[in-house]
Order: sequence, then structure tokens, then C-alpha cells
Amino acid sequence: MTSPSNTPVVADRAALRARRLDEALAHLDQSPGKRLRPLLLSAAAVAVGGESVRAGTLAAAEALELIHTYSLVHDDLPAMDDDALRRGHPTLHVAFDEATAILVGDGLQARAFELIATDNTLPPEQRVALVACLAKASGFEGMVGGQSLDMQSTGKTLTLDALKALHAMKTGALITAALEMGGIIGGASTAQREVLCKVGAHIGLAFQIIDDVIDVRSDSATLGKTSGKDAAAGKSTYVSLMGLDAAEREATALHDDALKLIADWGDSADELRALISRLVHRDR
Amino acid sequence: MTSPSNTPVVADRAALRARRLDEALAHLDQSPGKRLRPLLLSAAAVAVGGESVRAGTLAAAEALELIHTYSLVHDDLPAMDDDALRRGHPTLHVAFDEATAILVGDGLQARAFELIATDNTLPPEQRVALVACLAKASGFEGMVGGQSLDMQSTGKTLTLDALKALHAMKTGALITAALEMGGIIGGASTAQREVLCKVGAHIGLAFQIIDDVIDVRSDSATLGKTSGKDAAAGKSTYVSLMGLDAAEREATALHDDALKLIADWGDSADELRALISRLVHRDR
Repeated sequence: MTSPSNTPVVADRAALRARRLDEALAHLDQSPGKRLRPLLLSAAAVAVGGESVRAGTLAAAEALELIHTYSLVHDDLPAMDDDALRRGHPTLHVAFDEATAILVGDGLQARAFELIATDNTLPPEQRVALVACLAKASGFEGMVGGQSLDMQSTGKTLTLDALKALHAMKTGALITAALEMGGIIGGASTAQREVLCKVGAHIGLAFQIIDDVIDVRSDSATLGKTSGKDAAAGKSTYVSLMGLDAAEREATALHDDALKLIADWGDSADELRALISRLVHRDR
Repeated sequence: MTSPSNTPVVADRAALRARRLDEALAHLDQSPGKRLRPLLLSAAAVAVGGESVRAGTLAAAEALELIHTYSLVHDDLPAMDDDALRRGHPTLHVAFDEATAILVGDGLQARAFELIATDNTLPPEQRVALVACLAKASGFEGMVGGQSLDMQSTGKTLTLDALKALHAMKTGALITAALEMGGIIGGASTAQREVLCKVGAHIGLAFQIIDDVIDVRSDSATLGKTSGKDAAAGKSTYVSLMGLDAAEREATALHDDALKLIADWGDSADELRALISRLVHRDR
């Protein structure tokens, strides 16, 4: 056995084992997000199924947040948006290295689907429906496809329709999936599921418009990420295409329309209504 | 609406839509792999359940190959193993760009789980078991964790035990999952599933040892990838730790032990036996 005396010898698996990945995951835990998608999932389940279904939303909500987190880690990579700050902390590839950031993202995605598949509180029929919904929304036809369009669009001026289509995939698909997944767990009717999808499309778009508005209004210190970066990077934004006032009016109109869609859903939808409003009336 | 006259305007979503990802996927299709894992899955299902279960293996086998393919695309990235050639073709980040390679890998992973979850030929109970098995094997405790250990080990001399532990995660977990998934579809007993896992551990290790042997024996032209690269990159290999002859003897012993484990499985396991032998007695 060759063991040159000047190179460190790693004695066993325990000494190596995923320590770097564990440390990277702990780094992510230090700067949790707003957990908007898990909250939407839970609120949608309660809206269609009542409070009794809430306990069943835990694993799926966590899975959704893992997918969102993995997408941020990969989007921040130098080859993608090249961001050094996220939620006021160094991004993962800055705090660790690019390989670790890629692998953490990959592992988080796998963990998300494992969480749903092994959630014994839900019947297998619901679990496969949840995996299918989340996978489709996060893949080529959804989040991943949207991020690719976003990369290709940098330095180009998009039409408003193209920008909306891009964000419908990049952010809208996962927000819509959050509502649909809640609907699956809450036992939504086909009609209710369709309404949840429409609500998702509305608030997904509103969310992104508000993001652009905040991006222009805030500075780096209060936002915890590099500000005005999309515009500086040559990306089209709702503000650059519509102007600030029109963008804010559009977001408000989308918010109002979303609430109208569930106007007759009764008290069980109050939490969902409150979330929709928080999502638009936020300042970070 | 602002549209500076000197920048190209992308008119609509159709003009943008995932074209780059579609092209990148077509690039991957040009250099298909040996499909070892799908073959193992199918052979394991037939071994425990007979020929009649083979049709039910299609989606899961495809999913397994998608996970394997995504891992190769990500492993080849500059931040990881930095490989320019794979199966005789330029790697994806060379033929396209790093962002596209990261996104194609991400999308392939999502697609793998979507394929299993939406496979209506299998009952939901089997589908959730397959998703759970594949996700666990490809995540932090399996393939992703192993690749992280591999990255951390570069430039260090590992003990043989540490190298085996690394490869048990990096390659062994997915090969074992192939057999387990076949067992799930074929309706394996608990005892049969345990045997399949043991067989997986044996042939996973044998596979990696043979890889190292081939790496030393081949040159770049016949192998279609940069040769002797692991050793050159300062990675420990079975050949560098054991020597060429001992490595080959070890692979043969593992092969023989794997066959002994299923010696009394009857004719239905013949395909699995043949695959195990092909896997060790290969020259590329």
C-alpha cells in the first residue's frame, strides 16, 4: 500500500463522512427563509380540507422548502447568477466551495422526494401525486426551465409577455405547486384544484413583480442581498418594462383577483387570504 | 415599455422556451451509456418475480439511468472533476456552458422522480417504495455524499477501507438501488431483498475496482475519456493502493461471492448472473 509520508492519511470513513456537506447544511440553517411555500401549502390544505388535515402537510411542506432552498443555492453559483450574499449571509459556494454548493443542491433535491415518499401519515396515492406535482413544477417544464430562460435572456430586452412566461416557470410553477400540493393533501375537488392553480398563477406573478419593486426601492444593507442586481446584470424586470407605478398597480390587481377567486371559500380559507395579502404587501 | 434599439428583443416564450435545455438533452442522447443500472434493475425483478414483471420495470429503469446521467453531467463540471470528454464526446459544459450543465442535471433528477411517480402500471405502494429507495441512494447518504468525499479526498492518500467506504456511497449505492428497485417491482421477499443488497455491495465494489484497472490499462483513444485521470488528479485508486494484480484478484473474488449469494435462485436469475459476469469481465 502506497502512503507517501508527506500527504495526510484519512484513516476511516468516519473521519471523512459527509462532514463538509453537514457543515454546509448547517450554514444554510443559519439563514432560514420566510418559508412562504410551506405556509401556502398548509393554508391551501386547510382551505379545502379544514384544520384537521394540517398535520399531514408537514413532510410535503418541508420538501417544498428543500426544493426552493436547493434552487437558491444553485442559482447563486458563479456560472448562474454569481451572487455572493443571500439573506445577509455569504452564499454557499462563497462560504464553502462550488463543488459543495452543487452537491448540497443535488442532495437537497433528493431529500425532498425521499421525505414525501416516506411520509407514512399520508396514503401512497397522495404521496405519488405529491411527488409528481413537485417534480413537474421543479423540472424542465417549471423552475429549471425558467432558470434556463432567465440565463439566456440576460443582456436582452424581453417583451412583457416573455418576461411573464419566464417567471411563470421560474417562480410561478413552484408557488402554484405549493397550492396544488396543499389541495392534494386537503382532498380538493377537481374544481378546487383548478382554482388553486389559477390563484398560484396570479400570486406567483405578483410575487415576482413585488420582488422587482423591492429590488429597486431597497439598498443592499436592508435587503441582505446585492440590490438592483437584476437590472445591473442586464436582465429585464417588471419595473424596467412597465415603470414602478404600473408594476405596483399590476401587483395589486393580481392580488385582488386572486382573492376574488376564493371569495366564496368560507372561513377555512382565511389563512390563505392573509398569506396572499402578506405576499404582496411586503417590503423585503 | 423600454426597448433599447440595439439589444435583441425576444418576442415570445416560444422563441425562448427551453431550447437550450432541449439541445443539451439531445447532445446527451448522442452518447448513451451502457445502461448497466437499468439492466440490473430489470434482471433483479425477473430473478425474484419471473419474466412477467419485466414490463413494469421500464419507468423505474429509465429513472435510474436519468439519475446516473445527471450525476455524470455534474461530476464532469469544472468545479468537480473538470472532465472535457465523456463517452468520446465533449462533456455538456464544454459543448454548451456550465449553467446549462447544472440545470440539465437538476432537471434530469426531477424528471427521474416524476417518471416513477406517474407510472400507472405500478401500484402507488410500489411507486413510493421506488422513489424512497432511489432518493436515498442518490442523496447525502449515497451518491452525493460519496462524490463529496471523493472531492475532499483528492490529493490525499486514503486507506483501502476509506476508499471502499467512499465508493460504497459514490457508485455502490446506486448499483445496489438498481437491484433493490428490481426486487420491489418483482415482489421480492425480505430475505431476497437482503440478498440483493449484499449482491449490490459486492458488484458495486467490483465495478469500481475494474474501473480503476481499466483506467490504468487503457489509453484515452479507446476509453473515450481522459485516461489515468484519477491517479493524475491525486486520487487514491484500488490499483494505486493494492497494485494491479491484487486489484484484479479482488474483483474476481467479489464476482464469485456475488454469484454464490444467488446460487440457489434458479433459472430466473440467469440474466442477473450473466450481467454480474459482464460487469467484471469488461474492458471498457
